Amino acid sequence: MRVGVLTGGGDCPGLNAVIRAVVRKGVGEYGYEFLGFRDGWKGPLENVTCELGIPQVRGILPRGGTILGSSRTNPFKVEGGVERIKENLASNGVDALVAIGGEDTLGVATKLSELDVKVVGVPKTIDNDLGATDFTFGFDTAVNIATEAIDRLHTTAESHHRIVVVEVMGRHAGWIALHSGLAGGANVILIPEVPFDIEKIVEHVESRFRTNYSPIIVVAEGATPKEGTYALHNEELDSFGHVRLGGVGDMIAQELEKRTGKEARAVVLGHTQRGGTPTAFDRWLATRFGLHAIEAVHDGDFGQMVALRGTDIVRAPLAEATRELKVVTPELYAEAGVLFG
Amino acid sequence: MRVGVLTGGGDCPGLNAVIRAVVRKGVGEYGYEFLGFRDGWKGPLENVTCELGIPQVRGILPRGGTILGSSRTNPFKVEGGVERIKENLASNGVDALVAIGGEDTLGVATKLSELDVKVVGVPKTIDNDLGATDFTFGFDTAVNIATEAIDRLHTTAESHHRIVVVEVMGRHAGWIALHSGLAGGANVILIPEVPFDIEKIVEHVESRFRTNYSPIIVVAEGATPKEGTYALHNEELDSFGHVRLGGVGDMIAQELEKRTGKEARAVVLGHTQRGGTPTAFDRWLATRFGLHAIEAVHDGDFGQMVALRGTDIVRAPLAEATRELKVVTPELYAEAGVLFG
Amino acid sequence: MRVGVLTGGGDCPGLNAVIRAVVRKGVGEYGYEFLGFRDGWKGPLENVTCELGIPQVRGILPRGGTILGSSRTNPFKVEGGVERIKENLASNGVDALVAIGGEDTLGVATKLSELDVKVVGVPKTIDNDLGATDFTFGFDTAVNIATEAIDRLHTTAESHHRIVVVEVMGRHAGWIALHSGLAGGANVILIPEVPFDIEKIVEHVESRFRTNYSPIIVVAEGATPKEGTYALHNEELDSFGHVRLGGVGDMIAQELEKRTGKEARAVVLGHTQRGGTPTAFDRWLATRFGLHAIEAVHDGDFGQMVALRGTDIVRAPLAEATRELKVVTPELYAEAGVLFG
Amino acid sequence: MRVGVLTGGGDCPGLNAVIRAVVRKGVGEYGYEFLGFRDGWKGPLENVTCELGIPQVRGILPRGGTILGSSRTNPFKVEGGVERIKENLASNGVDALVAIGGEDTLGVATKLSELDVKVVGVPKTIDNDLGATDFTFGFDTAVNIATEAIDRLHTTAESHHRIVVVEVMGRHAGWIALHSGLAGGANVILIPEVPFDIEKIVEHVESRFRTNYSPIIVVAEGATPKEGTYALHNEELDSFGHVRLGGVGDMIAQELEKRTGKEARAVVLGHTQRGGTPTAFDRWLATRFGLHAIEAVHDGDFGQMVALRGTDIVRAPLAEATRELKVVTPELYAEAGVLFG
Repeated sequence: MRVGVLTGGGDCPGLNAVIRAVVRKGVGEYGYEFLGFRDGWKGPLENVTCELGIPQVRGILPRGGTILGSSRTNPFKVEGGVERIKENLASNGVDALVAIGGEDTLGVATKLSELDVKVVGVPKTIDNDLGATDFTFGFDTAVNIATEAIDRLHTTAESHHRIVVVEVMGRHAGWIALHSGLAGGANVILIPEVPFDIEKIVEHVESRFRTNYSPIIVVAEGATPKEGTYALHNEELDSFGHVRLGGVGDMIAQELEKRTGKEARAVVLGHTQRGGTPTAFDRWLATRFGLHAIEAVHDGDFGQMVALRGTDIVRAPLAEATRELKVVTPELYAEAGVLFG
Repeated sequence: MRVGVLTGGGDCPGLNAVIRAVVRKGVGEYGYEFLGFRDGWKGPLENVTCELGIPQVRGILPRGGTILGSSRTNPFKVEGGVERIKENLASNGVDALVAIGGEDTLGVATKLSELDVKVVGVPKTIDNDLGATDFTFGFDTAVNIATEAIDRLHTTAESHHRIVVVEVMGRHAGWIALHSGLAGGANVILIPEVPFDIEKIVEHVESRFRTNYSPIIVVAEGATPKEGTYALHNEELDSFGHVRLGGVGDMIAQELEKRTGKEARAVVLGHTQRGGTPTAFDRWLATRFGLHAIEAVHDGDFGQMVALRGTDIVRAPLAEATRELKVVTPELYAEAGVLFG
Repeated sequence: MRVGVLTGGGDCPGLNAVIRAVVRKGVGEYGYEFLGFRDGWKGPLENVTCELGIPQVRGILPRGGTILGSSRTNPFKVEGGVERIKENLASNGVDALVAIGGEDTLGVATKLSELDVKVVGVPKTIDNDLGATDFTFGFDTAVNIATEAIDRLHTTAESHHRIVVVEVMGRHAGWIALHSGLAGGANVILIPEVPFDIEKIVEHVESRFRTNYSPIIVVAEGATPKEGTYALHNEELDSFGHVRLGGVGDMIAQELEKRTGKEARAVVLGHTQRGGTPTAFDRWLATRFGLHAIEAVHDGDFGQMVALRGTDIVRAPLAEATRELKVVTPELYAEAGVLFG
Repeated sequence: MRVGVLTGGGDCPGLNAVIRAVVRKGVGEYGYEFLGFRDGWKGPLENVTCELGIPQVRGILPRGGTILGSSRTNPFKVEGGVERIKENLASNGVDALVAIGGEDTLGVATKLSELDVKVVGVPKTIDNDLGATDFTFGFDTAVNIATEAIDRLHTTAESHHRIVVVEVMGRHAGWIALHSGLAGGANVILIPEVPFDIEKIVEHVESRFRTNYSPIIVVAEGATPKEGTYALHNEELDSFGHVRLGGVGDMIAQELEKRTGKEARAVVLGHTQRGGTPTAFDRWLATRFGLHAIEAVHDGDFGQMVALRGTDIVRAPLAEATRELKVVTPELYAEAGVLFG
C-alpha cells in the first residue's frame, strides 16, 4: 500500500505532528510506503512530490508550519484537474490519500471522494470553526500566543492609562477572541457573530477608567459594527475584500481616542498567531488525528475525516463534516460578558 | 446571600481563576456577598476567614497558586469538626459554600452536603484522574511544562549520546506522562497503570542507539516495575510510602546505565509542574467552572459539582463524581506506543 | 532621610524591579523612608503621591509596567513648574529623588539637579540608545519577544513561500532590529542609521527564493528609504509625524509584493514588545541599577546616574550621560550583514 | 583554506549558533571550506568527520545542543594522541581548527597550539566561570530557565506555606544561583564560594514565616556547609565525587524541615537548564563569537580565543584565558544579600 499525504490552506501549528504520526504508524504498524505531495492539491495536480518516510519525519513534531508546503490550489477550478490528479496518483502508484486541511481542502477531498479517489481527511482550522469536531489543532497555540500578548499589554495599559485594542484572528468566528479574551482578562471582547455598538464600548471604557483601571479590548479581525452605529473606512478594503491597512482594531482605537479623549493603541497580532512550535495540547491532538487517520486508511474507511468528541477521536463523513461553520453561540458570548468590567 | 469559598489539597494553576469567576459573577449578576475561608477546610473549621470581593480578585487571573491558601485538613477526622463548621458558617452568615478541590476536599464536601451543608464543588486535580470530567484545570499547564522540558532534554541527549529519564507527576494515573510524552516525542512512556519490564526498556534503548539517536524516557512518579523484573530500593521509601531520594526516575537511570553501558541522567520535574501562570486552556476551563459553580448556587442546586463534557460545562452529583479514579486505558497506552522508536 | 521615587516616559520591563531594589535596600540598609510620586514628573509637579515601602514592593519584581504610573509631563514647559516641584518636595519632607526614565525624564533631572534638587538618575530606554551605558533594562525583553516572533514567522513563511516583514521598535536607533534580526536569523535587517535601497532588498529576496527559502525581513519602525529609491506614502503620517496606518513594514511588504510578484505579509509587533514580565537579564540589571542608585543617594553623590560597563555598575554625571544617542555603527551593521542570505 | 570545527565538553545553548556563524562567514566572505569533527577532540583523534557547509547549518540557529556532538575526550591522555591529531588534520587537508569548548577543550587547544597546530578558540561554559570574558553563551539561557522555575515555585510555596529549595547548576562558581536568585526574588542564595551556615538559614526562614511569606532558597549544586555547622551525607557521593541521590538541595530541605517543623520541598533543575533553544542574548553572543573566531583564522591570529568585553568582541591568548576561574566576589554576594527577606 502506498499512501500520499498533502497539507492545504493556511499553515497551522500541528501540521507536522499529523504528518509524523501518519507516517510512523503507517510504516511501523502497517508496513505502508508514503509519498509526499507538495503545496496542497497543487502537488497531485502538477505531480510535484517529495520523499516521505521515517527519516523525513524525524524531529518535526515540535516544528510549526508544514514540511510539505501549502497552497490554496483548487483542482476543480482547473480544466481537467480531476483527471490529472487521478493520473498522477496512478502513475505514482498511490492507492490512498491523507488530506490535511480546512474547509477548502476538505471540500476538494469530499468531491474527489465522490469521484472514487480514496481519501481520508484530517480537519485543520486555526479558527476552530469546524462543526464536526470539538477542537482543531493550532487553535490552542493561537489562543496561548494571543493570551500572552494580552498579559503583556495589561501592564503597559495600566502604566500609561491607555486603552489597548488587540486584534486577533477570526474572519467568520470569534473563538480565538473569546478564548484569549477570557484567558487574558479582557474588558471587552468583540466577535464577528455579534455586531458591536461603539457607544456601548465607549461607556464601558469610561466606567473602567472611573475605577482607575485601563481597558483592554480584544477584537476578532472579522468583527463589524452594528449598522448605523459606526462606519468602517470601506475604501481601505484590499483585493480580498478585507480591511488591510488599518483593520478593525485600528479603526476602533481611533474612534475611542476621538470619543473618550484617552490615548488608545491598537496591536494587530497577525501571523505570529499561526507560526512556531505547537502547544502540548495541539501536538497531542494533531498526533492522535494522524494515528486515527491512517487507521481509517487501513480499515478502508474512505470519505471520512477524523474528529475530536470529548476525549475520543471519532470518524465523520467528509460531506457532513464541512457542511456547517461552528460559531460562538449567544449563550457562550453572554457567559463571557459577565466577567467584563 | 453570602457565599463562602475555599480551596483545598495540592495547589494547581487555575485556582485563582475559579475564585475570580465565582466572585465576579456572584457580585455582578446576583448581588451576592462573599467570604474567603483560609487554607481549605481548616478555614471553616477554625474560623479563619478573609475578605473576598471584587478588589481581592483583581489581577489574580494569570497568577498560579491560590490567594486563599490550602491545606489537607479533614474536618471528619477532628472531634466535633462538622459541628464547628456548621457553627462557623452560621456565625459568619454564610448560606452556601463553593469548595474547590480534589478527591479529599470534595469527599468532605460530599459528606457535609449529606449533612445539610449547602455546597457546590469545583473539581481540581493536576493529575486529571477524576472520572466525572473530561479534563481538570492545571493539567494542561503541567503537561506544557513537562513537554517544554522534554523538548530541551532532546538536544542535550543527542549531543552527548545519553539516555535521559524524565520523571513527571502522576501517583496513580499516567495522564501527565502520556500527554507530555506524546507531545514531547518521548521514546518510552511508563505509567502507573502498566507495570514496566526493565528488559524491554533496555532493548528499546539499544535499538534507538543503533539508529544513532538518543532515547528519552518519560516516567510517571507512580510507575512500578513488573513483579520479578527489577527491584526498586524499597528501603528508600519515605514516611508516605513514596520513594523519596532517588525516585523511580533515578532508579531507572541507574539501572539502564548499568545494563547498557551508556550514560543515563534522570531529571525530576517536581513542583515546577504545578506552580506559575496557567495556560490559556486552564484559565478558560477554570473560569468557566467558576461561572457555572456560582450559577449552581444561584439555582439552589447543591450537592453538585461542575464538570467538562466535550465543550460543555455540566453538573454532576458530588457523590458520584468522586467515586472513581480515571486511569489511562490499555487502548490509549497502546495508541501512544505505536509512536515509540 | 526621605526619598521620593518616580518613573517617566514609555513603560519598560524592569521599572518595578528598580523601584523594589531602591526601596528594599533603602529601608533595610539605610533606614530610609520613601514616597512614591505618580506618573513621572507630573507627580512632584501636581503633588500626586502614593505610599511606597516594603509592602508596596512585594511581588512586583516579575511584573511589567510600573506601579508608580508614567507620563511625559515636562515641568520646564509649565509656568512655575520648577518652583512647584521644589515646594512639593519640601512640603512632603522629601530630601532626595530617584528619577527613573529616558532622555526626557533624565533631561529634566539634569536641569533640576543644576537648580539644587538632589536627584540620582536611573537610565531607562527600551531602545538601548543611551550612550553612557552598555545596556539598559527592557531591551533584552524586547529583543526576546521580537526573536520569538521571528522564530514563529519563519515556519509560516516557509510553508507558504511568502516574504514576511517584521516591524520592530526603534525610532532613532536600530538596536532591537539588529539584535532580534541576528538572533532570529533574519535575511535582511533595516535600521534607521542606514537608509535602505529597495532595489537591493528585491535582489536579495529573489536570490533567497531561488534557493527555495522564504525571506524574513526585520525593519526598525524608524527605518527610511534612501533618497530617490522609493517614496513612503507621506500623506499617511500621523500628528506626531510618524507613519501611522501602514508603517514602514507595511509599505515595504506592499512594494516587495508589487516588484517580486510574491506574496508578502507585514507583522507589526508594536506594544507587545514593551509589556509583560522582564527577562532574567533585565531583572538583574534593573535590580542592580536600583541598588546602586540608592547607594549614590546615601553617598550624597547627586547629579549622577548609574550605568552598566562590562559587568560593573558605575556612576556617570547626568549631564554627560544624556548628551549623545548611541546608534548602531557601520561596523556592527556590516558584521551582521555577513550572515544574510 | 580548509577549516575544521569541533565542540567539546558539556552541551550548551548557542553551540549551533557559533558553528553557523563560523561557516556562513567563512564560506560567504572568505571562500573557505569546512570539515566537521564529531564529538570534541575524539573527532580529530579518531578521524571521525562529517560534512559541514551552508546546507548543514541551515535552521540550526534556534536549536539547542550541537550538531557536531560532544565528548570529554582528551588527546593528551591517549598514547600518541597529538601525532594522530596532526596526521588526521593533514590527511583531511585541514589547515586550521576552530575549537568551541570550556576549560578542558580549550586547555587541549592551548597545548596543541604550542605544538604548532593552528587553533582559534571559542569559550563555552554554561556556568559563566571563565575569567577572560564578561559572559559566555548558554549562561543567559540557563539563568532564564532557572528564573522561570523560581517564579513558578513562589506561588506553590505561598499556597502551601512551604519552604522551597531550588538546586541549580554551578559546581565551582555561583553565577547561575546568584543571577537566577536575584531575578527570581529568592530569599536566600547559597553559592560554592561562600560556605553556608545552616543556623542562619533557619533564622532567615523563620523570620520569613513570621511575616506570613514562604521562603524560596536557591542553592548552587556545589555549595557546601561551613565546617562544623552541618554534615552532608558523604556516603552518598557518586563515582565522580558528587552528591548523587539527594544533592545539596535535598539535604538542606530535609534539614530545614527537621529544624523548623515546616514542610520543605527540594526541586533539582538539572539538565533542563542546559538544553533547548537559546535566548536572544545567547544567540547574539554565540553568533558574534563565531564571526570573530573565523576572522581570527583569516587574520592568521592563532592561539587566541574570542571574548566579550562590554559590548565588544576581543581576542585573548588561549593560554591566559583559561588560567583562572571567575568566581562570585564577596562584594557581589553582599550586594544581593541586601535584598533577602
